[in-house]
Amino acid sequence: MAGQQSFKQEPHKLLVIPGPIEISDEVLYANAHPSMSHVSADFIPVFGDCIRMLRQVLYTKDGQPFLVSGSGTLGWDMVASNLVEAGEDALVLHSGYFGDSFADCLETYGAKVKQVKADVGAAVTEGDLESALKEKKYKVVTFTHVDTSTGVLSNAKMIGEVVRRVSPDTLVVLDGVCSVASEEIRMDDWGIDVVLSATQKGLGTPPGLSVVCASQRALSVVKGRKTPVSSYFANWNRWLPIMQAYEKGNAMYFATPPVNLIYAFHASLSSITKSQPSLEERFRLHKEASSKIKQAVADLGLKLVPTDLAFAANGMTAVYFPEGIVAADIIPRMLKQGVVVAAGLHRDVKDKYFRIGHMGITVTDTSRGDIDKIISALKKSFAEAQAK
Amino acid sequence: MAGQQSFKQEPHKLLVIPGPIEISDEVLYANAHPSMSHVSADFIPVFGDCIRMLRQVLYTKDGQPFLVSGSGTLGWDMVASNLVEAGEDALVLHSGYFGDSFADCLETYGAKVKQVKADVGAAVTEGDLESALKEKKYKVVTFTHVDTSTGVLSNAKMIGEVVRRVSPDTLVVLDGVCSVASEEIRMDDWGIDVVLSATQKGLGTPPGLSVVCASQRALSVVKGRKTPVSSYFANWNRWLPIMQAYEKGNAMYFATPPVNLIYAFHASLSSITKSQPSLEERFRLHKEASSKIKQAVADLGLKLVPTDLAFAANGMTAVYFPEGIVAADIIPRMLKQGVVVAAGLHRDVKDKYFRIGHMGITVTDTSRGDIDKIISALKKSFAEAQAK
Repeated sequence: MAGQQSFKQEPHKLLVIPGPIEISDEVLYANAHPSMSHVSADFIPVFGDCIRMLRQVLYTKDGQPFLVSGSGTLGWDMVASNLVEAGEDALVLHSGYFGDSFADCLETYGAKVKQVKADVGAAVTEGDLESALKEKKYKVVTFTHVDTSTGVLSNAKMIGEVVRRVSPDTLVVLDGVCSVASEEIRMDDWGIDVVLSATQKGLGTPPGLSVVCASQRALSVVKGRKTPVSSYFANWNRWLPIMQAYEKGNAMYFATPPVNLIYAFHASLSSITKSQPSLEERFRLHKEASSKIKQAVADLGLKLVPTDLAFAANGMTAVYFPEGIVAADIIPRMLKQGVVVAAGLHRDVKDKYFRIGHMGITVTDTSRGDIDKIISALKKSFAEAQAK
Repeated sequence: MAGQQSFKQEPHKLLVIPGPIEISDEVLYANAHPSMSHVSADFIPVFGDCIRMLRQVLYTKDGQPFLVSGSGTLGWDMVASNLVEAGEDALVLHSGYFGDSFADCLETYGAKVKQVKADVGAAVTEGDLESALKEKKYKVVTFTHVDTSTGVLSNAKMIGEVVRRVSPDTLVVLDGVCSVASEEIRMDDWGIDVVLSATQKGLGTPPGLSVVCASQRALSVVKGRKTPVSSYFANWNRWLPIMQAYEKGNAMYFATPPVNLIYAFHASLSSITKSQPSLEERFRLHKEASSKIKQAVADLGLKLVPTDLAFAANGMTAVYFPEGIVAADIIPRMLKQGVVVAAGLHRDVKDKYFRIGHMGITVTDTSRGDIDKIISALKKSFAEAQAK
């Protein structure tokens, strides 16, 4: 298509917050697709392909994707209202801001929530998880794979294995809003029952689509409920026939899908699963870019929010300001150099740190030079701020 | 911007289903805006403007807009989970498919629902509404302003007036998914407490944004609840501070807004509220286009699904196939002429009719000639089908 080849997005500042991230011209052009019927023969296979490609990204053979208009947050409602019945116990592994919110959501639908909280900058340990699981039988365990507020990466493989060993009936829920497609997730191998995410981070698409994948085991728990699912819009029983129909090449209606966003998601997923770099290479590139940024931060004498590199995310970096420097010294200076970073978010330390996202094309399209641009802007901004 | 002026969407078939509708180049280009931070100084006023412009479209001075990632259906969850407590009574005025679904949604959150059902093709009458209101005190009355399954337009002004007169404490909820910006809605004057809608119909934007506006009276009902709001993602208490912050020019986070879609919505709302035709003129043009289509349909000897022109929508037309003609005779023939119409949706008569949308730029940008193109394709398709 001539149009596609010639489309170039407007000049803009480099967006390196932990999402939304930089979006390729190709994906933005797909977001500007002519308006299409959600039940048209042209659109149906596009939706079906998204379902199939998402399985590839999550290394699952028979996980069931749900692609629904909404933000990442809606994924919490899907988990809380489909998998937990009022009065049942849920265990939330807390590594930042998003643990508290997921707990609130579970409680809204009647779950009894226990949180195991790591210190700010740390993830819950194997020992603490094992002790908690031995105390009580939980219906679900949830954890934030990468907590966007701290840049802490939880060990998904370890969590899946420990839960399957100590409490095999408990469902394992991975909040992957800030991790899918920038951190490796092997849903089947690691025993993860639900991955929930959103499009605007590692998946390289504008925000507005809730992306969830449920294991067959999780779906059978929904089927076996004693009480009806406690949400209407988030009810998987309503969405399952829709997803199955589109995957089989038929249209079916529950609520209008975000057609343009699904064209955009299709463009991004195609790039992630069908072109270079490969998925494995993509994860390696994220680790490399992350190391480079973290090294540059260390060279500036700055401290990461994660207290150990072993649990620092590969798609984002959270950095404490040094003594005497505040957000207003750095963030506007970065902006002046055309680089948009994010302020802090975690309640306890909000004003003491800032965050850099490094996901998607900023990492995988090395010809853009984004990582070097970030590092150079960081050096310049801190030098200026310290000299002031 | 050079880019904006030169952007032209790809050639495509004319989309005249009752939503999604044809989208202008300008709005699609806004949907391809470079990725932006949802808390950036550039984006905040765009979000704030959408809130202000939506008030204009609905003729409300102090109604509170909620713009949330989701489909129109999510608006039902907002109504059911914020305004009705478990065990309270709700009255659903039923003029098609969407009445049943709204009732299901209300029941999911514990409401006791009574439906007043009009015959297929009719709207609930003033007398039936008044009788129902006198039998019992309802917390809310809901009605589908235009039921997309039948093309029936309910009399919103009458419903508002009757409820205020007979049962003044009852909240009036207008499901405007298929009516906002193609049918006149005077929220304040008519005593409407909630208007819920979506972007992909009269509002001329791709799907993916739930658009809801609540009166101050409705918000005070939420404040006075005895039990907590029964949904997490749809909870207005979580969204109200966000909407207020963006309107005041500050960012605040609950869930990531669909940034690109809000740029697109801004472009469309700007065109609706700030350029020609005026809002009043827009409603007049929809009536004119609708009359033209309905006349053409009558000239072909076809019968409308609405049993009286007095309650036929102005943004869409639902038409019975004549004896001996089925969907497969007409819809593919329309397609061959580059015009996409929709099949039936209402359970009772699904295969007996089809639907034409005439909203947004198809109606207001008369230079496109869309209405004439639809009529000519209809004539040709029926002539061919009848001659076969």
